Amino acid sequence: MNPIGPVNALYPMPTTLVGATVDGKPNFLTVAHVGILNHGTPQYLSIGLGKAHHSNAGIHENRTFSICMPSEDLLLETDYCGIVSGRKTDKAALFDIFYGTLKTAPMIRQCPVNMELKLHDVLDYPTHDIFIGELVETYADESVMDGGKIDIARLRPLLFDMASAKYWRLGTTAGRCWNAGKSLKK
Amino acid sequence: MNPIGPVNALYPMPTTLVGATVDGKPNFLTVAHVGILNHGTPQYLSIGLGKAHHSNAGIHENRTFSICMPSEDLLLETDYCGIVSGRKTDKAALFDIFYGTLKTAPMIRQCPVNMELKLHDVLDYPTHDIFIGELVETYADESVMDGGKIDIARLRPLLFDMASAKYWRLGTTAGRCWNAGKSLKK
Repeated sequence: MNPIGPVNALYPMPTTLVGATVDGKPNFLTVAHVGILNHGTPQYLSIGLGKAHHSNAGIHENRTFSICMPSEDLLLETDYCGIVSGRKTDKAALFDIFYGTLKTAPMIRQCPVNMELKLHDVLDYPTHDIFIGELVETYADESVMDGGKIDIARLRPLLFDMASAKYWRLGTTAGRCWNAGKSLKK
Repeated sequence: MNPIGPVNALYPMPTTLVGATVDGKPNFLTVAHVGILNHGTPQYLSIGLGKAHHSNAGIHENRTFSICMPSEDLLLETDYCGIVSGRKTDKAALFDIFYGTLKTAPMIRQCPVNMELKLHDVLDYPTHDIFIGELVETYADESVMDGGKIDIARLRPLLFDMASAKYWRLGTTAGRCWNAGKSLKK
């Protein structure tokens, strides 16, 4: 066990497309530095955006954003949204856009699952805005639903790993939570 | 695309064992509600812990914690640490413990990667303490290193999904980040 410096090893993380209205237009940014803060209602999720990004001003202004979950089918589009800026490119033109109850949180019909959030808080870090959203509504395509729940295998998320700089697929199931460890109980 | 209520779909997330010193003793808690807040140095990571957990008081007191990354080999132990409380059970006895520079952030030799963090901030939510840590040092076993970097395929992380209540394996690579989308550039 060797020290390797303060290397962030909290991977993989789900790759998302964050939607926002910026200067009156829908924009999308690829974000995998995300977080689940609590578990409950209201449900709070975080996205960490470098301050240079085009989307930040729109989230500050409208106090809404979306977290869209692309499947592997959208790999090229998802990666593209992380390498070009909405300042120069109409990234929303890649997608069929829709809006939910918040009106200013654009979502993507090609993503099997979309979440709309209202801004709850912003952590002002030197280089990043950490936007904390309260989840308002989730929209899911029937193709990824099973028994009223989202089937993550059908969703086929893109998992991001910084060290390899690759997107990874979800693999097979390894065990049941709150169950597999019961065998160790005395 | 149907509304399904405010269902948190930000999964899978990496399953971690969070280490803390509580009442002078090492304790570990399974946590998959984690987050990457920024990207840089200092690196800030979040863990969301229900207030009923035994570990919270120790993190508040010592202002340190660890985030240990179990591999699939530790599935039973990892799940066990999520279903029994450190109030009644010495969970640290399952593992070979070591400490880094912070002295009060216990880490696990059986985990191929361990991170020690000092407490940067706490978000006080009604039911959860959101502990934000500054990453101080990362410890990795040589078996998961490749060319100076952590090889996530060798790490074999346990990915948590709430809807299925299962641990999932990492799959195969799907594409290169900041690269695959270049084909869409005009």
